[in-house]
Amino acid sequence: MKPIGLVDGQLVDLNENVVPMEDRGHQFGDGVYEVTKVYNGHCFALKQHLDRLFRSLKELRIPAAYTPEELAEFHGNLIKESGITEGSVYLQITRGVAPRVHSFPDKVVPRLTMAIRPANPAANQELWANGAKVITAPDERWLRCDIKSLNLLGNILAKQKAKEAHCFEALMVRDGVVSEGSSSNFAVVKDGVIWTHPVNNLILKGVTRTIVVEELAPALDISVLEKGFSPEFMKTAQEAFLMGTSTEIMPVVGIDKAVVGDGTVGEITRKIQQAYVAKINRECKR
Amino acid sequence: MKPIGLVDGQLVDLNENVVPMEDRGHQFGDGVYEVTKVYNGHCFALKQHLDRLFRSLKELRIPAAYTPEELAEFHGNLIKESGITEGSVYLQITRGVAPRVHSFPDKVVPRLTMAIRPANPAANQELWANGAKVITAPDERWLRCDIKSLNLLGNILAKQKAKEAHCFEALMVRDGVVSEGSSSNFAVVKDGVIWTHPVNNLILKGVTRTIVVEELAPALDISVLEKGFSPEFMKTAQEAFLMGTSTEIMPVVGIDKAVVGDGTVGEITRKIQQAYVAKINRECKR
Repeated sequence: MKPIGLVDGQLVDLNENVVPMEDRGHQFGDGVYEVTKVYNGHCFALKQHLDRLFRSLKELRIPAAYTPEELAEFHGNLIKESGITEGSVYLQITRGVAPRVHSFPDKVVPRLTMAIRPANPAANQELWANGAKVITAPDERWLRCDIKSLNLLGNILAKQKAKEAHCFEALMVRDGVVSEGSSSNFAVVKDGVIWTHPVNNLILKGVTRTIVVEELAPALDISVLEKGFSPEFMKTAQEAFLMGTSTEIMPVVGIDKAVVGDGTVGEITRKIQQAYVAKINRECKR
Repeated sequence: MKPIGLVDGQLVDLNENVVPMEDRGHQFGDGVYEVTKVYNGHCFALKQHLDRLFRSLKELRIPAAYTPEELAEFHGNLIKESGITEGSVYLQITRGVAPRVHSFPDKVVPRLTMAIRPANPAANQELWANGAKVITAPDERWLRCDIKSLNLLGNILAKQKAKEAHCFEALMVRDGVVSEGSSSNFAVVKDGVIWTHPVNNLILKGVTRTIVVEELAPALDISVLEKGFSPEFMKTAQEAFLMGTSTEIMPVVGIDKAVVGDGTVGEITRKIQQAYVAKINRECKR
């Protein structure tokens, strides 16, 4: 069981040099990515991730050099060859290699790099059980957060702030509205209703968020309001949680110096979390 | 005379694979860069470029793994080994290679990649002589444009729009204010005074811009106002020009569908341009 990489379909050692310096990913962050979680040897929600990948490619006008079927096959190869059954597969496609100019090069072949790494089984267990603390931070990112691109410095700097505050995540605040976490979506529960930022150019349409909003909450008969809210409103909520592929459903019990609700995991959050785990178990035959 | 690369001090072929997939430059755009112009075998304004590089590194908390003297030596090596006397040297430093997590890795060695390429002698001659056309585009970039980072998708998409409109550059407009070009700074001349956006988080403090504002304009007894202006104000200006290392001083004679002044290169623009070329000639012994 060993992390391995894949470049344009070929398995490689993760430490191998596989990219020339003039890859546009390396020089411009000119590319897109997805991370898919592997449970019991199965990629969870792979179709949704690949659908979003193709949308990101289209928005940046990077040609799709692989079919969804080929990409699904590469995911399978990585799981099989690595022997990793609990972990995650990272995939990125850059516009390819060309002499450095800002505008799109005329002839260029997109480059696919992928990697599989095992999950750390202990990593988030305690936080999933008892809830995490988060901070707020100014949202300094660009205005196309709907594209899952490699331009991640705004996300990195916010996440680093959270880490240094011994918190799990940073909630991004732009123009007085809480948009999302630095690598997750975010929701609060106020009087029995889930509030979360609407899907637009300011947030990523998370696969986990979509599952919660379109599937789990309706099945549990919980109302969802896709509407922006302020940090002040947020701090009057009874519950809060993060949503993400790696984050899964992460209860939030503290924001900055404030306690959320009574400081324990809320009832609605727990129901959503249980329904999410049940869905994973069902689809990945755990 | 052949483009060549350099990785952590060692000369390499530009097409060689020199970066592992988990370089943070490749996966996050987590790094900074500079481009220095080479005239007559000399790097122009190298000290100013290296000063800015170290500022960018500091802002992103990437450790400086090389001294300015070493980096200057690498520039010299690239010129010498390539035989290129008219061209440009590209330099980037990423945070280095680490298993992919957003926050800064604990132990990581920054990675330096550099490349020299020859100038295309014909490229901008006609535009420098007669002026260029530009478009305006929404500034979708992040809020730390003062850092010369590898997160360049906002710049790329704007430059591509300009290219498709058969224009030289896109002027970025944010909240009703013209900030800068997608890879250059911008100024207009209104009633004998040069107006240009003030230095803050919304623009890069260009080396060429600094030379114009702090040195050339004062020597020519031309007033400079570092103040934001609207697209409407811009279109009432008598002259306009771009400033940049590769762009040099580029007169602008058309913006979107509007003609600037009488559609020819303005008098103040020409004076600044001549003074800039004279400075290059002096410092690079042309």
